[in-house]
Amino acid sequence: MIKISKLLKINQKIVLASKSPRRITLLKNLGLEFDVIPSNINEDINEKLQPAEYVMELSRLKADNVASMLGGDEIVIGADTTVYLEGNYLNKPKDCNEAFAILKRLNGQTHQVFTGITLINNQTRKIISEYSKTDVTFRELTDDEIYAYIESGSPMDKAGAYGIQDDFGAVFVSHINGCYYNIVGLPIELFYRMLKEVLR
Amino acid sequence: MIKISKLLKINQKIVLASKSPRRITLLKNLGLEFDVIPSNINEDINEKLQPAEYVMELSRLKADNVASMLGGDEIVIGADTTVYLEGNYLNKPKDCNEAFAILKRLNGQTHQVFTGITLINNQTRKIISEYSKTDVTFRELTDDEIYAYIESGSPMDKAGAYGIQDDFGAVFVSHINGCYYNIVGLPIELFYRMLKEVLR
Repeated sequence: MIKISKLLKINQKIVLASKSPRRITLLKNLGLEFDVIPSNINEDINEKLQPAEYVMELSRLKADNVASMLGGDEIVIGADTTVYLEGNYLNKPKDCNEAFAILKRLNGQTHQVFTGITLINNQTRKIISEYSKTDVTFRELTDDEIYAYIESGSPMDKAGAYGIQDDFGAVFVSHINGCYYNIVGLPIELFYRMLKEVLR
Repeated sequence: MIKISKLLKINQKIVLASKSPRRITLLKNLGLEFDVIPSNINEDINEKLQPAEYVMELSRLKADNVASMLGGDEIVIGADTTVYLEGNYLNKPKDCNEAFAILKRLNGQTHQVFTGITLINNQTRKIISEYSKTDVTFRELTDDEIYAYIESGSPMDKAGAYGIQDDFGAVFVSHINGCYYNIVGLPIELFYRMLKEVLR
């Protein structure tokens, strides 16, 4: 495994302002050493904002919230991911019925996944925000496939009621256009470029 | 986890004619039960064939080789993946120097990954072959990043000298257009549709 901390000569503490297990796994896979301190902000969606602005704004609020708690020389990572279909935000389903309704809407359609990332360097006060957009196309699903997926429990903690990285999510998606890891919850290539930038 | 064998009511033995650890993992993640019997064929590339024809042809040869060894009522899966850049096939690197040369060629460019899949139903003699194509765009890499990646050992057993699923491969790829799992070695959504078809 590569140690990004070593390659980029990072000597500041890194803090992830998110307790998302998928983000934690992706960053660990990069060989990055970091602490997890979830932010404490209201995540209600302001549906007036366009999704790119929305996810960048929310990632900034999360990073800022944790950066101001700490106030040392840390680098703080904020991120927010949203699923967007024809002008509507698709959130985490509240129950199985809502999961079914969401998956029926995604069925045979192309939707967008947006992730905003904000990095704050508490040492230099440098702040950068960017976003990634990926088009995701679902094939036509049968109701049996949707029921089987909901029974597995996987849709319940995920915006848009699916995870492309889990067993059956992979079977639903026929095509993507953009960064794959954006759909998982953190566009790794964008994050890596931003990390190099914020260290400068 | 979902059991595809149960959802699709499969009562035939499934055999994967490939010992690729990535294909084995992807199929296990689907909850598919299968045996692994690698094929015994010559994989030399006939560079006259176009990549789509080439990967389908080779997947058919692999599946056919194993299906004829068995000759019961199995379903046999053959697959072949190739990396293609501007008219050239990029194979597994022979050594670190070749890995470096391949990664330098991919640097900042868009290449294609093709996977051919053949399914043979020994019970009905039904045979289907299809392929998936994904465009993969690398960002501009520094030589230090390439050296660090080669040092990790990851490029050595992979066509095109990278694995999108491993730690640093993810950092190289800025954009994909097509199926993500095709790049890993088996386009799962295509495979699933073909499996439903060959069972009919």
